[in-house]
Amino acid sequence: MFVVMASTATEAEILGVKSHILDEGLTPFGHAGAQRVVVAVVGEIGSRKSSLMGALGQLSGVERVTPISRPFKLASREFHAEDTVIRVMDAMIGDGSLTVMAGPCSVESRDQLFETADSVKASGATVLRGGAFKPRTSPYSFQGLGVEALRYLSEARERTGLPIITEVMEANQLDIVAEYADILQIGARNMQNYSLLNAVGRMSKPVMLKRGFGATIEELLMAAEYILASGNPNVMLCERGIRTFETYTRNTMDLSAVPVLHSLTHLPVLVDPSHATGKRWLVKPLSVGGVAVGADGVMVEVHPDPDKALSDAEQQLTLPMFADLMAAIVPIHEHVKDMHGDLRAWGSVPAAGGGGLSKH
Amino acid sequence: MFVVMASTATEAEILGVKSHILDEGLTPFGHAGAQRVVVAVVGEIGSRKSSLMGALGQLSGVERVTPISRPFKLASREFHAEDTVIRVMDAMIGDGSLTVMAGPCSVESRDQLFETADSVKASGATVLRGGAFKPRTSPYSFQGLGVEALRYLSEARERTGLPIITEVMEANQLDIVAEYADILQIGARNMQNYSLLNAVGRMSKPVMLKRGFGATIEELLMAAEYILASGNPNVMLCERGIRTFETYTRNTMDLSAVPVLHSLTHLPVLVDPSHATGKRWLVKPLSVGGVAVGADGVMVEVHPDPDKALSDAEQQLTLPMFADLMAAIVPIHEHVKDMHGDLRAWGSVPAAGGGGLSKH
Amino acid sequence: MFVVMASTATEAEILGVKSHILDEGLTPFGHAGAQRVVVAVVGEIGSRKSSLMGALGQLSGVERVTPISRPFKLASREFHAEDTVIRVMDAMIGDGSLTVMAGPCSVESRDQLFETADSVKASGATVLRGGAFKPRTSPYSFQGLGVEALRYLSEARERTGLPIITEVMEANQLDIVAEYADILQIGARNMQNYSLLNAVGRMSKPVMLKRGFGATIEELLMAAEYILASGNPNVMLCERGIRTFETYTRNTMDLSAVPVLHSLTHLPVLVDPSHATGKRWLVKPLSVGGVAVGADGVMVEVHPDPDKALSDAEQQLTLPMFADLMAAIVPIHEHVKDMHGDLRAWGSVPAAGGGGLSKH
Amino acid sequence: MFVVMASTATEAEILGVKSHILDEGLTPFGHAGAQRVVVAVVGEIGSRKSSLMGALGQLSGVERVTPISRPFKLASREFHAEDTVIRVMDAMIGDGSLTVMAGPCSVESRDQLFETADSVKASGATVLRGGAFKPRTSPYSFQGLGVEALRYLSEARERTGLPIITEVMEANQLDIVAEYADILQIGARNMQNYSLLNAVGRMSKPVMLKRGFGATIEELLMAAEYILASGNPNVMLCERGIRTFETYTRNTMDLSAVPVLHSLTHLPVLVDPSHATGKRWLVKPLSVGGVAVGADGVMVEVHPDPDKALSDAEQQLTLPMFADLMAAIVPIHEHVKDMHGDLRAWGSVPAAGGGGLSKH
Repeated sequence: MFVVMASTATEAEILGVKSHILDEGLTPFGHAGAQRVVVAVVGEIGSRKSSLMGALGQLSGVERVTPISRPFKLASREFHAEDTVIRVMDAMIGDGSLTVMAGPCSVESRDQLFETADSVKASGATVLRGGAFKPRTSPYSFQGLGVEALRYLSEARERTGLPIITEVMEANQLDIVAEYADILQIGARNMQNYSLLNAVGRMSKPVMLKRGFGATIEELLMAAEYILASGNPNVMLCERGIRTFETYTRNTMDLSAVPVLHSLTHLPVLVDPSHATGKRWLVKPLSVGGVAVGADGVMVEVHPDPDKALSDAEQQLTLPMFADLMAAIVPIHEHVKDMHGDLRAWGSVPAAGGGGLSKH
Repeated sequence: MFVVMASTATEAEILGVKSHILDEGLTPFGHAGAQRVVVAVVGEIGSRKSSLMGALGQLSGVERVTPISRPFKLASREFHAEDTVIRVMDAMIGDGSLTVMAGPCSVESRDQLFETADSVKASGATVLRGGAFKPRTSPYSFQGLGVEALRYLSEARERTGLPIITEVMEANQLDIVAEYADILQIGARNMQNYSLLNAVGRMSKPVMLKRGFGATIEELLMAAEYILASGNPNVMLCERGIRTFETYTRNTMDLSAVPVLHSLTHLPVLVDPSHATGKRWLVKPLSVGGVAVGADGVMVEVHPDPDKALSDAEQQLTLPMFADLMAAIVPIHEHVKDMHGDLRAWGSVPAAGGGGLSKH
Repeated sequence: MFVVMASTATEAEILGVKSHILDEGLTPFGHAGAQRVVVAVVGEIGSRKSSLMGALGQLSGVERVTPISRPFKLASREFHAEDTVIRVMDAMIGDGSLTVMAGPCSVESRDQLFETADSVKASGATVLRGGAFKPRTSPYSFQGLGVEALRYLSEARERTGLPIITEVMEANQLDIVAEYADILQIGARNMQNYSLLNAVGRMSKPVMLKRGFGATIEELLMAAEYILASGNPNVMLCERGIRTFETYTRNTMDLSAVPVLHSLTHLPVLVDPSHATGKRWLVKPLSVGGVAVGADGVMVEVHPDPDKALSDAEQQLTLPMFADLMAAIVPIHEHVKDMHGDLRAWGSVPAAGGGGLSKH
Repeated sequence: MFVVMASTATEAEILGVKSHILDEGLTPFGHAGAQRVVVAVVGEIGSRKSSLMGALGQLSGVERVTPISRPFKLASREFHAEDTVIRVMDAMIGDGSLTVMAGPCSVESRDQLFETADSVKASGATVLRGGAFKPRTSPYSFQGLGVEALRYLSEARERTGLPIITEVMEANQLDIVAEYADILQIGARNMQNYSLLNAVGRMSKPVMLKRGFGATIEELLMAAEYILASGNPNVMLCERGIRTFETYTRNTMDLSAVPVLHSLTHLPVLVDPSHATGKRWLVKPLSVGGVAVGADGVMVEVHPDPDKALSDAEQQLTLPMFADLMAAIVPIHEHVKDMHGDLRAWGSVPAAGGGGLSKH
């Protein structure tokens, strides 16, 4: 449930509400919106619900207490009406600007990374991506350079000024990865690795959570909720294709997820057409499409010589292709930016809990 | 296989090739491209393949004979390199302009249809849609006004000058529907109704074939091949969402299908966000997305008072919403038009048969 | 809604109820169960619901009127509690015995059919299958021998005494197919071809309706409802695999659909492991599995020389393989027969409309 | 690749082969079959393939060297022809006997666990299951009693003599869970948590790996390969339903996966109808079906009072229901046991790599 404070509520009154919640063995999460403060109550409420709503409603400074039937609370627009904006070095994500994360699937050498980094920076990328620890379907495939790759990424940040995103695969790696990376990526296969979600949730470093290829939109938001409920508000989401019967593309990119997520949550939403399609020549049209439906950013794989790449050779762009991609998406973003708020407001979001179907 | 004629081949030589093919009990389909004529050989070739290729290769005026491993022949870019352009009254479909088909899910009354038709015409629609015979999951749901609706559609065409598209559900209806409609729609549930495909194939009236919600891209093209092989070259395709595990939207709109289809086939490709999403407020962003990935057109459902609609109430747009939609997509189309040929040429189409996987 | 008559209701009272329903422009369907007669009211009831329930409840001989929230009415267990049993010549389907439909995918010649028919009869098949008109993904594939095949099937019935099942693909074929066949098959691709459903519904000949590979269980039942509502009560259902992301098998056989259907409907349920798996060596274990979960029968493809078959070569069984299959499934059926009623009764069926989710 | 040793090869010759492989920076895995020893070579072989095959083929005692195109090596039947049999206390898994794992979804109290354990033991269960650390979609749901639950499970083992299986969710928990559990379960959401797979691979304790609901059969085998390649040969697999568009059941149980897995791998295969269907009344028919298609065992959730369960209330069986289930499946298993080897041998397994489609 959410406790909506009066616009005149004092700090002491807000504190009083939080204390009451803590006394019940539950956890209060406050969000100061433009107009008023909302305090979310999370934890196992169960049968206490109506008595608790009554008690909280009587506290000083409380305007009203509203139940929420959605399973995600802190991730919801009801709790946090304004878009979350995440600052990483000079890059702003979710503020209406276009975030472009580009770089090689795997960091393979210092030279390969630097050549890519310099080129994508020149073309307009705002974040540098590169895999250090790689989750691979086969135990016999290249698993990444590990810490060596992290060091190269760090050097590339020095060269280019671009913040760095790289995947973290397990809680044990978290300290070392967080030492180098500016944004922690949780990969699709780990979207429901709750230990890892809790671990990144206990940090304040920004996290990009990719949708599992077998996961619903609601489950993606529940996974984000794990991170938020552990204390880290800096979460962005990424649609990267879901599993369907269609075999032409590797996965089916679910572009409807972008406006759906924008209606349900305040978190930034990116798209990853490289993994969604698995085919180089589809990356550009689907990037254009992703930006057009309102994504806050795009993540694409770029390699100086894709045919020699140690992983994902078929889907990485060459450096000139990436420049061409940027030339295509920047003006589209400029164009849809004007209709953006409009896009979100056009159809009113369905009432809480009314839109989707829960199947756990 | 395709017989590629020399650029200097005479009519008599082309006729000679066609006669030879007919003598083999097979069917020749000629296509006169910008440079040269290509004759496709269709039918059950089986073990005759190499001897037939040899014999055809020796005929006068033949430059070369090429096998084709794709299961679709006449629908393929290999046979017919240029985009197919379909003219319907004053509307051109597939020529680079933006086709917008709009109108009510079902024609419910003369007034409802006229009000909608006048309004969508004013907003810029190029084709008027309206259901006369409705395929419904339940036998107890409203099944459409039938011939009465066809008459209203015909009157609406007189009023507005817009050509009319309506669904034909069975071969027996074909004569009456074709008497009134300018474009015949084959619905998703009938995509593999081969009797119906053959029947519309024996006409010359344009056909819009919707992808079945359980059908692969390759199966959509094979269904189009049925119509083409029966003699009707005026076929356009429509992506309207596929069935996946995601339950938030009615279906998952497969926008990657648009560039994939543009690479594989010369037929125009439209998108239908109304049926794909099943939710009114998602129609605009997904229309924008569809135009952005290069669709030749959009089909949307519009109703003067959607909440009172006899079918698909949740997904039909109001008249002002449609005007708003047009204001959004027209400039996007203007914008991507410049990168359009580029989009198709960027990544070369995989070699024949190499891209997808056949699972019949 | 259902009008449940008192156990003492007279013919005249039942007739009175039906007349009242007809006067309302709706259609009454009566079913005489073991205890009492139930009259289903079908058609567009809409806002008349409560007044109509009141009026019917006051008629003489009526015990109670119950609303039904499921979209399927005549197909439901609520309307028709006992299993439907269909007699075709000497074969009984749905009475607890094991129905086995076997024969070639396509009838290719008199010899091929007779050899198969004699052999499957000797091994214990109860119905002979064989395709005359074949729905093929490609217009260039073998489309069946047509009427010639129907004649061979008819001769094979004379030889073996087995009733014949063959597919009907369009309403126009119905007269000729029904002249020869004992059971009409509606194929998966035509499951929502409503014209065809209505046409077979106007006959009394038994119909086997196959589940579309993109169709939910509820949609299968709605398709059956079309046939039932047109007047033909002799409908049996067939699970033949659905489309999923798994590519090892052609489709994913949904064996849970068998007990689910037995709980929701009174119609017999068969399984078709040949089409579900697409692989010969999986037909036996999945047939065993289908019988074990309680299917009323199995349909399998059998060919004297599968490698030379004109269609579905990879999935047809040899004649000895079919004999081996029969040896496996007959004792399993004997075994589960004892737990059969039990299987259906074990867990109570969820309340009407409560089990599944409607997404049209 | 596999190095097949001559049947007369000495220990020294086998050691020579392994040394050569190690010198190449690759890892040898030996398997002593009934006839001869096979040494699998795993690691990044790349372009060395043909020269390495030549060199190994010349070594003393080598009969032949065969390439393997499947991505899984150690999990394949080609490497290890006989069924893997895993012994856990007195229970044998994969030896042709029927394994039944039963117990509550979550351990909720000592009493609840003991009551369940005593009852399932009396009904014939061979392994006791119970969740201590629970992966839950929502961070606010009951997450299990943790170590306290492990202690109760250990006490229950003392009472009943049944070995214990419980889920391990992260590498950090592994030591404590392994101290109490006899079989470690990797849940569906963690099937591609490679850190966890490697960690359990470094132990010798038996592992049950559940198929992810979005994972193909091939990916399940690749996940098993991670464990095997890390050194732990004691792996069993569990089919628990995949995500499809069907919404009636929670997931769609893929029973064809059982014979497919038996053909591709030597590892035992179990089924979990509780999670696959999500509905109590479907657990019995699907357990019967799973045993009938040849599963080595069944895992089911049982609770003294399911309606009060803290998790998965809708799918847990009562104690008498479980007794009823046992009475149904034991004789089915007796029956199919005789056709079991037969089931696996009936159709020959497709040649290596020939059966499925790889899409990573």
